[in-house]
Amino acid sequence: MEGTVVRVAAISGSLRRASANTGLIRAAAEICRESIPGLQLDHIDISALPLLNTDLEVDGGFPPAVEAFREKVSAADCFLFASPEYNYSISGPLKNALDWASRPPNCWGDRAAAILSASGGSGGSRSQYHIRQVGVGLDIHFINKPEMFTKAHQPPNKFDDDGNLIDPETKEQLRKLLLSLQAFTLSLQGKPANSQQQGIN
Amino acid sequence: MEGTVVRVAAISGSLRRASANTGLIRAAAEICRESIPGLQLDHIDISALPLLNTDLEVDGGFPPAVEAFREKVSAADCFLFASPEYNYSISGPLKNALDWASRPPNCWGDRAAAILSASGGSGGSRSQYHIRQVGVGLDIHFINKPEMFTKAHQPPNKFDDDGNLIDPETKEQLRKLLLSLQAFTLSLQGKPANSQQQGIN
Amino acid sequence: MEGTVVRVAAISGSLRRASANTGLIRAAAEICRESIPGLQLDHIDISALPLLNTDLEVDGGFPPAVEAFREKVSAADCFLFASPEYNYSISGPLKNALDWASRPPNCWGDRAAAILSASGGSGGSRSQYHIRQVGVGLDIHFINKPEMFTKAHQPPNKFDDDGNLIDPETKEQLRKLLLSLQAFTLSLQGKPANSQQQGIN
Amino acid sequence: MEGTVVRVAAISGSLRRASANTGLIRAAAEICRESIPGLQLDHIDISALPLLNTDLEVDGGFPPAVEAFREKVSAADCFLFASPEYNYSISGPLKNALDWASRPPNCWGDRAAAILSASGGSGGSRSQYHIRQVGVGLDIHFINKPEMFTKAHQPPNKFDDDGNLIDPETKEQLRKLLLSLQAFTLSLQGKPANSQQQGIN
Repeated sequence: MEGTVVRVAAISGSLRRASANTGLIRAAAEICRESIPGLQLDHIDISALPLLNTDLEVDGGFPPAVEAFREKVSAADCFLFASPEYNYSISGPLKNALDWASRPPNCWGDRAAAILSASGGSGGSRSQYHIRQVGVGLDIHFINKPEMFTKAHQPPNKFDDDGNLIDPETKEQLRKLLLSLQAFTLSLQGKPANSQQQGIN
Repeated sequence: MEGTVVRVAAISGSLRRASANTGLIRAAAEICRESIPGLQLDHIDISALPLLNTDLEVDGGFPPAVEAFREKVSAADCFLFASPEYNYSISGPLKNALDWASRPPNCWGDRAAAILSASGGSGGSRSQYHIRQVGVGLDIHFINKPEMFTKAHQPPNKFDDDGNLIDPETKEQLRKLLLSLQAFTLSLQGKPANSQQQGIN
Repeated sequence: MEGTVVRVAAISGSLRRASANTGLIRAAAEICRESIPGLQLDHIDISALPLLNTDLEVDGGFPPAVEAFREKVSAADCFLFASPEYNYSISGPLKNALDWASRPPNCWGDRAAAILSASGGSGGSRSQYHIRQVGVGLDIHFINKPEMFTKAHQPPNKFDDDGNLIDPETKEQLRKLLLSLQAFTLSLQGKPANSQQQGIN
Repeated sequence: MEGTVVRVAAISGSLRRASANTGLIRAAAEICRESIPGLQLDHIDISALPLLNTDLEVDGGFPPAVEAFREKVSAADCFLFASPEYNYSISGPLKNALDWASRPPNCWGDRAAAILSASGGSGGSRSQYHIRQVGVGLDIHFINKPEMFTKAHQPPNKFDDDGNLIDPETKEQLRKLLLSLQAFTLSLQGKPANSQQQGIN
């Protein structure tokens, strides 16, 4: 089964250029390339999506930016959400993206996912449980462990000024989360785990 | 105290032209005009807001559409949210609006609010409890009673094809919710209730 | 794989003798016996558990009623929760049981589960999403589909005076939920679905 | 209005003898006695309540322990919940108590409340948002600010071995929370704040 490639579509709920959440996705992509065979992560940008309005659906078609987004979601084996916590919940742009790709036919269904968040205070946990509830409607299966709440503003510095992850401990947490996502995805697909995943989770 | 006017800023989470949720706001405005002295309801459109991205804040200023929205929120005495349920939570456009007006200085703080929703199945209840959690962060005080979950797709027909509310029973529920919102707003402001509110809630 | 028996531990959050939720569990047991080969359901009573107080744990041991409950949980392949909605959340007795069996070592971990609820109004949905959040902590994997919300007080009569399920449509929903639970349990265990599950979900 | 006494019924969700949550209630009682005129706090014990089972209600009466508990709840002007987080939600004993006093006639209705929690990790925030949702059903009005999440296991030591609060900073947070609860209670009762509350919140 060494040839099984698991494709992760990664989405950041923050549109800021120097977002720590988007930085976590960049770090995740690098970790996959360098040390997780069989896991390929692509960042899907959601900043060009219009605000959801089903009047924009004409003759069963979607606006071009929505159509392109939906195709990328559909093509993925699993998802990684990097979710900032805005006012104790999901960001508007992320919810907007989740909803566009749920319009029939639902593009998210029956796939595995993991969530991470960089935030102040709680580390974003309140947004993560809202995403999990949304995921019931979308028919997404989330890994339970490890959960990852990155307290962006607590020492030591975890991100540089461009939002790049520079903290080795957070990188190691991220690596474990990605391995757990890979193993759970393969399990749901009825495939044996790669040798790399054994002993994880 | 007959002169006390309570200004309600009403926001619909659906941008569809024929939205039942926006229809509930139109009905609420009409009920206020016709039968609730002292309660003035204005619908605030959120469709022109950009997706939240704090990089758009320059020198402490907001994009013009955001600035205009924030001023309307700040000027209100209380809020009415008409919240469709998308995938077991708040719509993206509504969350986006809530977040823009929460950017410092928070425009929502220490005000009363009520929520209504027209939706299938659960009548939108899952979105309402997410809004209530968001409201803790925004420092909004919600009325507890009555709660209003309009099951848009159950007989009898409650809306016409343009989303106008045509069901007398739902109108009466809406009137009671508005009276409860008015009374709670005045209570939080330390003002006695109008005679009309007595015996309500 | 015809010999693979999946053992379901079923727990009712209501202790009333004539509880509709407990009635759903009795109906589920009967459906398993009669028409779902390979699925064996046992009702675990939680009424004898003391209120959770970790001072009752002495020398790493639990009170006898807790010990017996934990053993039954540990022995199960998956779980079925019949959850009444009390004040928009889980019942106290059910939460108490969930917590006792989570004391280290956690007895729930890495197993599948399904939830059903008989309740008024919302059909108990608010309790189900709270259980799902608790399940993240317990490391339980819930099926997403079908969800089952039995509106106990809406016509037609679904239960007799003893809480026995008498509604054929609800029985059929229950059968589909059990088949989905069986299939998901086998999937997580890395076993192929029985022929009976094919085409389900 | 100097004579207005606000009676707080305080309930701990933990039954452990050395519970930090119960310790927070003892500290709150002491702060009220020493430095908050007009606020009187009584701890209501919930350990003797039976697991909720409405079959125990006979001829409209409740078991003696329940009856006594309901009377204390009814007599209070507002509530303080000290809520440990068990498995990402409310403790079973606390939910059990909330439900018993909600049986008709509801003893909680139209009163103010505040929540605090001592817990690991998140400081108990996940339990607090579940209580807030329960409170909608109970018709409780919670203060929004300040929120208080006491991370019991982070340095410096905040509690001694008996669960007594020994951290001055946490005591000061607790004092502010109590003042906010007092002011909000008086506001909901239509009474002017005592001079001590001015400038708070």
